Amino acid sequence: MRTQVGIVGAGPAGLLLAHLLHLAGIESVVLETRSRAYVEERIRAGLLEQGTVDILTEAGVADRLHREGLVHEGLELRFNGEGHRIDLKGLTGKQVTIYGQQEVVKDLIAARLATGQPLHFEVEEVAVHDLESEAPRITWTEGGTAWELRCDIIAGCDGFHGICRPSIPAGLLRAYDRHYPFAWLGILAAAPPASHELIYARHERGFALATMRSTSLARLYLQCAPDEEIAHWSDDRIWSELHARLARRDGIDQVQEGPILQKGITAMRSYVVEPMRHGRLFLAGDAAHIVPPTGAKGMNLAIADIRVLARALEAFFTGRGSEGLDAYSDRALARIWKAQRFSWWMTSMLHRFDGGDPFEHKVQVAELDYVCSSRAGAMTLAENYVGLPLD
Amino acid sequence: MRTQVGIVGAGPAGLLLAHLLHLAGIESVVLETRSRAYVEERIRAGLLEQGTVDILTEAGVADRLHREGLVHEGLELRFNGEGHRIDLKGLTGKQVTIYGQQEVVKDLIAARLATGQPLHFEVEEVAVHDLESEAPRITWTEGGTAWELRCDIIAGCDGFHGICRPSIPAGLLRAYDRHYPFAWLGILAAAPPASHELIYARHERGFALATMRSTSLARLYLQCAPDEEIAHWSDDRIWSELHARLARRDGIDQVQEGPILQKGITAMRSYVVEPMRHGRLFLAGDAAHIVPPTGAKGMNLAIADIRVLARALEAFFTGRGSEGLDAYSDRALARIWKAQRFSWWMTSMLHRFDGGDPFEHKVQVAELDYVCSSRAGAMTLAENYVGLPLD
Repeated sequence: MRTQVGIVGAGPAGLLLAHLLHLAGIESVVLETRSRAYVEERIRAGLLEQGTVDILTEAGVADRLHREGLVHEGLELRFNGEGHRIDLKGLTGKQVTIYGQQEVVKDLIAARLATGQPLHFEVEEVAVHDLESEAPRITWTEGGTAWELRCDIIAGCDGFHGICRPSIPAGLLRAYDRHYPFAWLGILAAAPPASHELIYARHERGFALATMRSTSLARLYLQCAPDEEIAHWSDDRIWSELHARLARRDGIDQVQEGPILQKGITAMRSYVVEPMRHGRLFLAGDAAHIVPPTGAKGMNLAIADIRVLARALEAFFTGRGSEGLDAYSDRALARIWKAQRFSWWMTSMLHRFDGGDPFEHKVQVAELDYVCSSRAGAMTLAENYVGLPLD
Repeated sequence: MRTQVGIVGAGPAGLLLAHLLHLAGIESVVLETRSRAYVEERIRAGLLEQGTVDILTEAGVADRLHREGLVHEGLELRFNGEGHRIDLKGLTGKQVTIYGQQEVVKDLIAARLATGQPLHFEVEEVAVHDLESEAPRITWTEGGTAWELRCDIIAGCDGFHGICRPSIPAGLLRAYDRHYPFAWLGILAAAPPASHELIYARHERGFALATMRSTSLARLYLQCAPDEEIAHWSDDRIWSELHARLARRDGIDQVQEGPILQKGITAMRSYVVEPMRHGRLFLAGDAAHIVPPTGAKGMNLAIADIRVLARALEAFFTGRGSEGLDAYSDRALARIWKAQRFSWWMTSMLHRFDGGDPFEHKVQVAELDYVCSSRAGAMTLAENYVGLPLD
């Protein structure tokens, strides 16, 4: 088998790349180890920057997103029991959209299937080869049969635990890594959201976030220990902690309880690998970098990577040279580091650090106070939250 | 002896308070343990926010400041060998003025002496008493004679190592303290400044700052170990380190050498005590809080404290009640914590942290990159640097 671009991974990055390449008349094959049902149901991120919505709209895969997504023009920072709205739209002219990553994936899978182009689920033993040559290969097995795909380019879109990044010879990549001393305990509950916009709460007991999947599905998070065991968190304990951390000084309790449909622990980590390329293998999205979820940047960064990569591949395959491919890593990383900084900043400003001294605690509150009292301070949050310019 | 306000300390805070009280027809006595020559020559801070200049101008003590001060409308951040100008004036409409703290002190001493009001230098064994009564007292000796001053109010303007703060009973104050793992080695050199504006340089070898006292006196600083011994720094080593850290990618070397007139090590510490009052004793300036010098906030914070305190005292002594005095600590602290945050942020962004991991290093550069590429980012630096609003 042969194709122009072999794509490893059918998450938002791989599927969007396949679709953009198809629109540009470039052939690709997408390989995914998981089942279609799994990737379509996997709950992940759920907040799209305006630039992400624009890319999906231009690609023609955003009809349902525009129908079902919840547009948010602001968010709330809550500390010392008081809420402070950051007017994203008023400050930046832009907005964000609540729409689950798995919904984006469903839309992209439907678009891919409609083109009739290859998309293989439940493949096994995927491996990439000859990355430094002009004819790299992907091998895998499917239903017991071994396959080989010869490509011009391989796109590694297989996530943080994927096989592409580790296929690059040791010593050629530099990794930047930060583990945070806490995690998030997240629940999905059949209950109305606490507010019509997100609430980011800094509290002595730890950070809490009230968000949503829809107007009847609340998504709520609690800062917890990194080695927290979910078994120690009864529904009652979770709700009581949410009530406490999201408490308002005026006594109004916005947290509405309902049956908890899912519970899980999310680790908090910042990670970047440089460069995002080795020979003919290009890494994109989580395969190259992850962020703590506080800034809601994970999927948005993946989509932004793909936009840069797709344009570079289009230039390459239409005979306009490889300058774009050569610049891909630096170009993507410039924006990635800004988003890493933002995610680290939001995380540092909002979480309780157990080792933190009282000075650090006061500086944290002063930072929130500054962001909420200075237009420039609010703007630094808003413009990063809605997404810095793509180019 | 008796007076309305007993002022301990003849630094910028104590002297300005005495002058503002005089203008309001309120009597005060100023006591200083050092000699007049010492406080008039002591090299300290040298950058005045526009609000500080405005306060001194309104008080009628800024004629020489306006003649001799160097107005700066911007500053430079330098990293990765490239300079990025922050246009303070363009962003905020405000500017800063280079004028040494000792010059402010000279002007205020001259103003005080012109009023004929009491100002005692070289006093010894100063102590404050009966702070919780309505008639607090200050005792001291002068030329071997013991004195006692009965006051309505005592202002503790005697700096970080003064006697006022420690006179407050243990347990009533809460201190917030942060020691940084580095110090500044500073020199004063008979040489033209490296640039007509300040240069804040982040470098792998450590932070460097190029500033000035005048167009022919350069003031230069190098990040060094907190326990650095000045004896280990020959003039040659200092200059060579300055050349290296302020190096530009284009090869232009702006550092101009000249005879080194002074050398010294400055510790880096953040400290705040709350509240800034006990009974009839009010703390102001360094007596209550110190900042690392990176944000050039120390003297400016002292002047801002005094403005709040002078107004409250004026209301108190003209029969308009003690609400202002009761609100003094909270009002001053609200602004102090913003300045503490800013000083901590500038310090964190620009210095080399030896224990820092590679991720932290990249985030530091991303932060500088963001500040220099986003108008909002630049504005958060500029508006804090020229000074947040006083009220």
